[in-house]
Amino acid sequence: MIKRYFPILSWLPHYHRRLLGADVLAGLIVTMMVIPQSLAYALLAGLPAVVGLYASILPQLVYTLFGTSRTLAIGPVAIIALMTAAALSGVATPGSAAYLEAALVLAVLSGVILIAMGLLKMGFFSNFLSHPVISGFLTASGILIAASQFSALLGVDSQGFTLVERLVSVIPELPKVHIPTLIIGAGTLVFLIAMRRYAKVLLQQWGLSAMLADLFAKAGPVFAVLTTTWITWFWQLDEAGVAVVGSIPMGLPPLGIPMPDAALWQVLLVPALLISLVGFVESVSMGQMLAAKRRQRISPNQELIGLGAANLAGGVSGAMPVAGGLSRTVINFDAGAQTPAAGAFAALGIALVTFTFTGWLHYLPIATLAATITVSILTLVDVATLRQTWRYSRSDFSAMAMTIVLTLVEGVEAGILIGVVLSIGLFLYRTSRPNSALLGRVADSEQFRSIARHDVETHSHVAFLRIDESLYFANARYLEDTLYNLVATRPELEHVVIVCSAVNLIDASALESLEAINARLKDANVKLHLAEVKGPVMDKLKRSDLPKQLTGRIFLSTYAAWRELDND
Amino acid sequence: MIKRYFPILSWLPHYHRRLLGADVLAGLIVTMMVIPQSLAYALLAGLPAVVGLYASILPQLVYTLFGTSRTLAIGPVAIIALMTAAALSGVATPGSAAYLEAALVLAVLSGVILIAMGLLKMGFFSNFLSHPVISGFLTASGILIAASQFSALLGVDSQGFTLVERLVSVIPELPKVHIPTLIIGAGTLVFLIAMRRYAKVLLQQWGLSAMLADLFAKAGPVFAVLTTTWITWFWQLDEAGVAVVGSIPMGLPPLGIPMPDAALWQVLLVPALLISLVGFVESVSMGQMLAAKRRQRISPNQELIGLGAANLAGGVSGAMPVAGGLSRTVINFDAGAQTPAAGAFAALGIALVTFTFTGWLHYLPIATLAATITVSILTLVDVATLRQTWRYSRSDFSAMAMTIVLTLVEGVEAGILIGVVLSIGLFLYRTSRPNSALLGRVADSEQFRSIARHDVETHSHVAFLRIDESLYFANARYLEDTLYNLVATRPELEHVVIVCSAVNLIDASALESLEAINARLKDANVKLHLAEVKGPVMDKLKRSDLPKQLTGRIFLSTYAAWRELDND
Repeated sequence: MIKRYFPILSWLPHYHRRLLGADVLAGLIVTMMVIPQSLAYALLAGLPAVVGLYASILPQLVYTLFGTSRTLAIGPVAIIALMTAAALSGVATPGSAAYLEAALVLAVLSGVILIAMGLLKMGFFSNFLSHPVISGFLTASGILIAASQFSALLGVDSQGFTLVERLVSVIPELPKVHIPTLIIGAGTLVFLIAMRRYAKVLLQQWGLSAMLADLFAKAGPVFAVLTTTWITWFWQLDEAGVAVVGSIPMGLPPLGIPMPDAALWQVLLVPALLISLVGFVESVSMGQMLAAKRRQRISPNQELIGLGAANLAGGVSGAMPVAGGLSRTVINFDAGAQTPAAGAFAALGIALVTFTFTGWLHYLPIATLAATITVSILTLVDVATLRQTWRYSRSDFSAMAMTIVLTLVEGVEAGILIGVVLSIGLFLYRTSRPNSALLGRVADSEQFRSIARHDVETHSHVAFLRIDESLYFANARYLEDTLYNLVATRPELEHVVIVCSAVNLIDASALESLEAINARLKDANVKLHLAEVKGPVMDKLKRSDLPKQLTGRIFLSTYAAWRELDND
Repeated sequence: MIKRYFPILSWLPHYHRRLLGADVLAGLIVTMMVIPQSLAYALLAGLPAVVGLYASILPQLVYTLFGTSRTLAIGPVAIIALMTAAALSGVATPGSAAYLEAALVLAVLSGVILIAMGLLKMGFFSNFLSHPVISGFLTASGILIAASQFSALLGVDSQGFTLVERLVSVIPELPKVHIPTLIIGAGTLVFLIAMRRYAKVLLQQWGLSAMLADLFAKAGPVFAVLTTTWITWFWQLDEAGVAVVGSIPMGLPPLGIPMPDAALWQVLLVPALLISLVGFVESVSMGQMLAAKRRQRISPNQELIGLGAANLAGGVSGAMPVAGGLSRTVINFDAGAQTPAAGAFAALGIALVTFTFTGWLHYLPIATLAATITVSILTLVDVATLRQTWRYSRSDFSAMAMTIVLTLVEGVEAGILIGVVLSIGLFLYRTSRPNSALLGRVADSEQFRSIARHDVETHSHVAFLRIDESLYFANARYLEDTLYNLVATRPELEHVVIVCSAVNLIDASALESLEAINARLKDANVKLHLAEVKGPVMDKLKRSDLPKQLTGRIFLSTYAAWRELDND
């Protein structure tokens, strides 16, 4: 029981030196790698760069206590940063103290929501984000984030939370492009893309091991940060107008519980809910994927608690909302992390940096960070899934396309909400007009197949109708229509057998409809039978009056009904 | 094509004298019967009594042109009146000109919404109101309406749109009970209940035909109105403090298009949507029931247009939102109406009354109308369905109970909305954790049944898993979990066959999950097969990569898989 809520107890007692070595090494690598992106995502959220460092310390340490994934690395992530910026834009001006406080409130709210969902075992809620909607949302968010970084690469201003707003605000600024900034930004961009594409192969050709080559290739942002910071410092480019991160306060995160007025909590409730949901889905799907690779398991409900605790910890330590980050987790995994201790070592590493070296980051150009974000974010744009979904299912594709369009045009919150509503609506629509098939017998067998698709035997006075859906309120009327039409068009019918092999549920509405159908067929001298009713469905039917009222019988198999009614 | 949108063209050309006689008689009877309830429902909506008459004229005439039901009678109905009062309470004071104008706007909006839904063929939307939710909503509304009439019966004041508000406001007023009003109110109440319960049997014993006896019994409200109006006039009881309808303007309804500001349209949009939906569901289910009795059919989408046109007509002729009324339709049907012309004759009759006799209604006591409403409305309270639903399905019952409680406590709009959301939520929850069963072969047959429920043969190296649900985003993860658990607990497994007889849909999310499962089982040296994939599902799968990637095969029947894999 205690182990369930404190998964750390299941691995810490067995901890030994070999694990320690691997974890310390992974922690060290993660520390170096994630500093640029932590700063970048804080800026993306409209917050001071140092908030990104704070968000990588206490939240990660707390997750180590409560999380079930061995390799998930917690910190600021791009999507959540974008959603944070959208949520806070309505309540305060970026850069103000009120804006920072609202970010803390958002983190605390997300934490409370996630923990509550975890305690209530509501991990299944994330199931209602369908894959096409998630994929579409990530693609559109990637484009939005890249668009938001475009102006920083050019050294001009732009605002907005939709693609249109961004374009409208950046176009008039284009003549003011700042050449030194553009050189740094574009240079970093080209360098990073080249590193991604060629470095690994090249380094391996030079004799490095695959793992080391991969690690170096991934360290591209670190080299870029070091180089451009040094250049900016050496030529004092900040005085020439290159925007830099500026002075970052040295020291550990400030502790304190945010105490805003009730109105702020209320305004931020829905954004916090969406941030929680998106953060959870992203973290859990990544955690599951990596756990599967090592034949481990994670518990979604405990992950909710772990993520919630991490966000709460962030809210009281000057940080922004956090989640399991894609790139930092992959770095951690590839660097050989064995237990959550690796994450804790990385958190301590970043704490050390925050405590001592932040002065060195003063001259880091914003354009370098923008290039870092742009390159890492474009991996979210997933054209292959878009194409596959189009080929497989037009309606899934339409949900995906609407999510993309609305995210780009109306912003992240509208996009994710419409995606969920559309997915559910499409499913309900599909199930409300189910496929049904008249069946005949495959010659000399006990198998029954659709008359329309197979060459089968039939009786003229018995109709076997298979309804390919659970019977529930949304298709109860459809069921009545289908049966009345069947009887109206075939006056020679004496028996109708509803084959229930695909009926997994009969709810109270459908039960009423079946009773009405039974009564009306009785008037028309047609007997109504059921066949292949599943165990759980039958258990429930026995508690209703239908079995008594039914003019016909309930057969175990369609074949039994066929034999029985043949002689009739 | 023209006939589809003007159903009148399908019956008017064949109209003849015998139909005319029947329709005129029915129209005459309906005219007399519905005047009391028309006045009463207008008062219930907080509107002048005459609005109820207006609502029975032009809307009914227009419905005659566009409606497909032969017997549906259009006019003010209790639920819609209650919802109208709730919707208007926020925007104006009852009795004011603004309140009346808002009622017209509500009618116009409902009309536009209904016509739009009809043209877009969205009649299926009403399917999402499940029977338990409708039944619970009607029950709670009946109680709310009865509670709202209670104070009028006692001759005291009360306000509110929830049961609690009503009770809180009426209790302090109880000492001020007005005795003459109470005598009229309670007297009418007892008289009407007695008429309902005993009059028909008694009159038949006295030798009247069943139909005539029934008609007389239903005329109870007409007798009550005539008698109490005469008493009030004779003793001038209005001067003694008995509230009366008062002077009703004589003449035809005033024509004019309401032209309010944009803000009002916006505020009334959601209430209008709910009123449209509820009015449509009530009208269509009644229309279908009566059409079925005479082996006729109605078209739900054209009914939307008919009802919408009726509401539009109401909005431009001084009326309130309307729908097909339960009691007036039953009176019309029982009085022998043959075509929609009967409704038109009733509308003309009421127009004649409005044009000439409204002066006579001055002394009609409000308490009489309150008693009329109370008696007719209590038929909505449906305890039998409540009990049956409890017995059949706890989750359907919970949706029903929540609808009742929320309608009583939070009002009609919250009640119906939560009912719809709960119905859909419960369905999604149920389908997100589907039943699944491991199957074995019924000895010497081609039938396969659940191992847990039947005595069947099994193979140790082949598992037959039947998933009793369509595979879609909400249960995609559940599917993965189920299969991974199966393989983890049975190391001797070499083949897993997913029996898809109950799978009516595989959406893009579930397809991705199946591909992931296939890849992971491959790592574990287990082959994945599918069996009994339905035609439409298979058609779609062929457009994906799954059939190529699949480590196993796709079998037509479970039995074929059993034979094939047995030799393996």
